[in-house]
Amino acid sequence: MLIKDMAREASIDLLARTRLCRLACAHEGQPYITPIHCVYDDNHLYGFSTLGQKITWMRKNPLVCVLAEELISPQDWTSVIVLGEYEELPDIGPYAMHRQHAYDLLQRRAMWWEPGYAETVLRGKARPMQFLYFRIHIEQISGHRGVPDSIAEPEHSVAQQKKRGWIRKVFGRPEQ
Amino acid sequence: MLIKDMAREASIDLLARTRLCRLACAHEGQPYITPIHCVYDDNHLYGFSTLGQKITWMRKNPLVCVLAEELISPQDWTSVIVLGEYEELPDIGPYAMHRQHAYDLLQRRAMWWEPGYAETVLRGKARPMQFLYFRIHIEQISGHRGVPDSIAEPEHSVAQQKKRGWIRKVFGRPEQ
Repeated sequence: MLIKDMAREASIDLLARTRLCRLACAHEGQPYITPIHCVYDDNHLYGFSTLGQKITWMRKNPLVCVLAEELISPQDWTSVIVLGEYEELPDIGPYAMHRQHAYDLLQRRAMWWEPGYAETVLRGKARPMQFLYFRIHIEQISGHRGVPDSIAEPEHSVAQQKKRGWIRKVFGRPEQ
Repeated sequence: MLIKDMAREASIDLLARTRLCRLACAHEGQPYITPIHCVYDDNHLYGFSTLGQKITWMRKNPLVCVLAEELISPQDWTSVIVLGEYEELPDIGPYAMHRQHAYDLLQRRAMWWEPGYAETVLRGKARPMQFLYFRIHIEQISGHRGVPDSIAEPEHSVAQQKKRGWIRKVFGRPEQ
């Protein structure tokens, strides 16, 4: 397998076509991961949720990480990691416009509300449902692509791969 | 779709058969997610990595979260979230035995070193490789399963589903 650093544009392309991402937030040093459905637009990821642990934590600490992946096989994959900041979009003042934008973007995708609802039904059975829209401002983005040798090697020599920014992966299992 | 809380045993079964998980760690409030290859045994997840950001961060703050999933469709999925504590397994003193155990467990799986190596080759090009074994002590585990209506409904009435701990999901998209 060869591993390639992806250009920012290619990383954003992956974000734009990924439906389900993983979001990590953290509270008092404890990280927490949940699946989220989000849509990329103009350096932001727009999402929807109901009130639960993730939202409570992100209100206290807006620093988040989002992982988007396309996995074809262990040697053929693409992954993008975003570091960003959570911003809630209530239906008031300057946020209302962005909230409407979030809704417009999300409703283009079928079943976009599924992960958000699921969490509430499970964790907040007695609470009235409270819909929340939010966006994540992308501060940093990095992407990597793994390519099987069978595809990458016939076309490029090792020198060419290095020149193109491809990185040869070391094989062989590590010793104990 | 119906969503079911999974028993601890079923959640552990999923952990035990999952090859690739997502691990979140956090440093100074900033969470970070990476894919890891880990193996479950006796309330621990055993893993391998080379020295990089994730290890540096977990040495400073051992609180982690691991997500394991099986996704068949948006309505047919299983997911397990583990909150736990990172423990490094150097080749000295009382840790050596656990390190050997980690190696024995991991080497039963093909290509188990791939995600760990990939990270080093990408991020630590100039550094000598340093192999690290670690385990995550599971402090808390929760699992959920989504089941399509077409499978769940013919067999059980709503009352039966509630009695069995199945939770009926609310349908219909939220309003803006």
